[in-house]
Amino acid sequence: MDRYLVISSDCHAGLPPEKYRDYLDPQYRETFDVALPIQLEQTQRMSEKFLVAEINDQWREGREAALSGAWDHAERIKVLDGDGVAGEVLFPDGITEMNMPPFGAGLSLPTEGGIVPELQWAGARAHNRWLAEFVSNAPERHVGVALVPALWDVGEAVREVSWARANGLSGALLPCQWGTHAPYHHPKYDPLWAACQDNDVVVHFHSGPAPMGDYFGDLTDPEAVDLPGAMGIYVSEVCWYNVRPLTFLIWGGVFERFPRLKVAITEGTVVWVPEYLALMDHRYTDTHASAKLGDYHSHLKSKPSEYFARHVGLGASCLSAREASMRHQIGVEQIMWGSDFPHPEGTWPFTERERGISLHGLPESDIAAILGGNAARFFGFDVDKLAPIAARIGPRKGGFAEAA
Amino acid sequence: MDRYLVISSDCHAGLPPEKYRDYLDPQYRETFDVALPIQLEQTQRMSEKFLVAEINDQWREGREAALSGAWDHAERIKVLDGDGVAGEVLFPDGITEMNMPPFGAGLSLPTEGGIVPELQWAGARAHNRWLAEFVSNAPERHVGVALVPALWDVGEAVREVSWARANGLSGALLPCQWGTHAPYHHPKYDPLWAACQDNDVVVHFHSGPAPMGDYFGDLTDPEAVDLPGAMGIYVSEVCWYNVRPLTFLIWGGVFERFPRLKVAITEGTVVWVPEYLALMDHRYTDTHASAKLGDYHSHLKSKPSEYFARHVGLGASCLSAREASMRHQIGVEQIMWGSDFPHPEGTWPFTERERGISLHGLPESDIAAILGGNAARFFGFDVDKLAPIAARIGPRKGGFAEAA
Repeated sequence: MDRYLVISSDCHAGLPPEKYRDYLDPQYRETFDVALPIQLEQTQRMSEKFLVAEINDQWREGREAALSGAWDHAERIKVLDGDGVAGEVLFPDGITEMNMPPFGAGLSLPTEGGIVPELQWAGARAHNRWLAEFVSNAPERHVGVALVPALWDVGEAVREVSWARANGLSGALLPCQWGTHAPYHHPKYDPLWAACQDNDVVVHFHSGPAPMGDYFGDLTDPEAVDLPGAMGIYVSEVCWYNVRPLTFLIWGGVFERFPRLKVAITEGTVVWVPEYLALMDHRYTDTHASAKLGDYHSHLKSKPSEYFARHVGLGASCLSAREASMRHQIGVEQIMWGSDFPHPEGTWPFTERERGISLHGLPESDIAAILGGNAARFFGFDVDKLAPIAARIGPRKGGFAEAA
Repeated sequence: MDRYLVISSDCHAGLPPEKYRDYLDPQYRETFDVALPIQLEQTQRMSEKFLVAEINDQWREGREAALSGAWDHAERIKVLDGDGVAGEVLFPDGITEMNMPPFGAGLSLPTEGGIVPELQWAGARAHNRWLAEFVSNAPERHVGVALVPALWDVGEAVREVSWARANGLSGALLPCQWGTHAPYHHPKYDPLWAACQDNDVVVHFHSGPAPMGDYFGDLTDPEAVDLPGAMGIYVSEVCWYNVRPLTFLIWGGVFERFPRLKVAITEGTVVWVPEYLALMDHRYTDTHASAKLGDYHSHLKSKPSEYFARHVGLGASCLSAREASMRHQIGVEQIMWGSDFPHPEGTWPFTERERGISLHGLPESDIAAILGGNAARFFGFDVDKLAPIAARIGPRKGGFAEAA
């Protein structure tokens, strides 16, 4: 084949907020009617506060048809084909974070700030139902990631993971932050890891959540001081919070107990990987500096970097040239390119150019791995079914030989 | 001079817990008598829980005289001279974390877990009084770091910084974590930054504090499950929590408003520096990925790395050979070697060997900067007064030419 198989490890899909009504269990529809205008008004207020309403409007202008690919499958396929993307992994929060499922069941899966567990579950299920329907239009091209607000009730989470698998979804998005709930090294989550492993459902953490109160103070308090630099702190810390659950899983011995569990860390950049692993391996092997802390190593048979290599996939959204140049330090078999369509920070509508800037000059085998081979293996895409699609739409090999 | 001037940017001094009584304001002594046995019992229980009681006992065995240098000035000077250390920066928590000032006024300066603000202040003042006395024995050799539990009351903190300067102390240790208090980009702290700047008092953050509840659960709950890997997570995250306040100061524009403020980040390793600065500079200069977040750059005239270079000193305790090899990426004018005496994870009693392993083969000018030149300039040591001491005890130039 003279074209690459491309799979985007990070794409988003979801309905316009008002359209989730039909996918909710009927008993939540009345609450939905009350909550929707409040959600839209809050969204609008935040958008104005951070001076981004205009930017978001600009993003949509003249692109309405293509962006409706966030929920319209025929439009979606046109965009994917135009981007040379044969397969994709589907997270929530359609066109922007302004398009999220109801009741706080978006990408962040918060557990604080007035979130009602029963309602968040209802919102998550509404999205999961719609997503299962969306994916069924071309199951070979989409890996759907179910929303699983796992912190409230592990039993519920286990049931949702089984439901996801039975309905054609093969990923589970978990909260990155746990507030006052038990963190992920707590043994109470073992049934959830077992369910994900046994159902071949990949656990996902996606960048976005962070302790916003630390940056912005209380956003609902009209008396609150506007804190200078809050957004700069957020963008400097957000990737760390996305990786944090992995630190807990590794040290917690979760991969020791669940040797087939897979975890994707998405849109958190991948530059952190070498120092992250160096630090944890150092802590694992070091004896002098940590002697006074007792034995915290011997429950793990492998070094942290070894669990990482076996269990972790990196959703490398909008991969930069610098990240590509660091690929051997990071793990050339773990980096999985992503377009982030239809988010404005993604590569679309300049995907071909952006991909060229990131990958030009790399060996063909590395490009093949990063663009699709790694994701195909990690997420279990059926490459035989994708091959004819890639043969038709994929970027041509040789096209990355020169500077874009 | 054929010897290096050595200054340790990270040393510890403090009384055995029971001896702080005399340094407390009299109205707190009765409370002290009640609290001390509880503190000692808790310390012992933790020490047993983490299986380190034995290691700590071993650490002291046969070293009692030298370790009494934690509070005995004559013994201290013998150890410093033996280590070739002319000057040092003095943090609390003497021989180990088991030796801390009363009422939670130790290195971590916690604000949760039953801490009473008035008592923590009293404990901090007791330590500061003792430290001022200790430093006065040889003021040219010690930079004393006052404990300033600043989160409770900024006015109190401002007064303590003035007191510190007036009493021969020239550093202020602030809490790394703020719990539910305002974080450091809040303008309410501006009077504190002004006081530190105007009194030439260096702000210090020292590794140790981290959200222990996230790792260990509720340590006071006898029913609590023992969480596997908790200590591994702690040692993997603790450095990040030590650097975190700096992220808030930089983005908060604090260095813009206080152009002579200096901040030391100590015992957090220094390997994080290159990626930390690359990330923040990227966030500062990037326009595509962050457009939807509004303008969060223009209140800062300089890039984050520029503030870092101008304002930050790195307390590089027990510098590793790898860190030394990365010195140009990290900042060869900011790395300040430290021995961490008398903590068991420090270089003593093998300081000469450890220093040799870290620094052998480096150019003389880099060794001079890292061992003492940077710290002399950053903390304002009087090098004329230290020169004769260094000429007598300092490690010989040329001694680092070969592998240790």
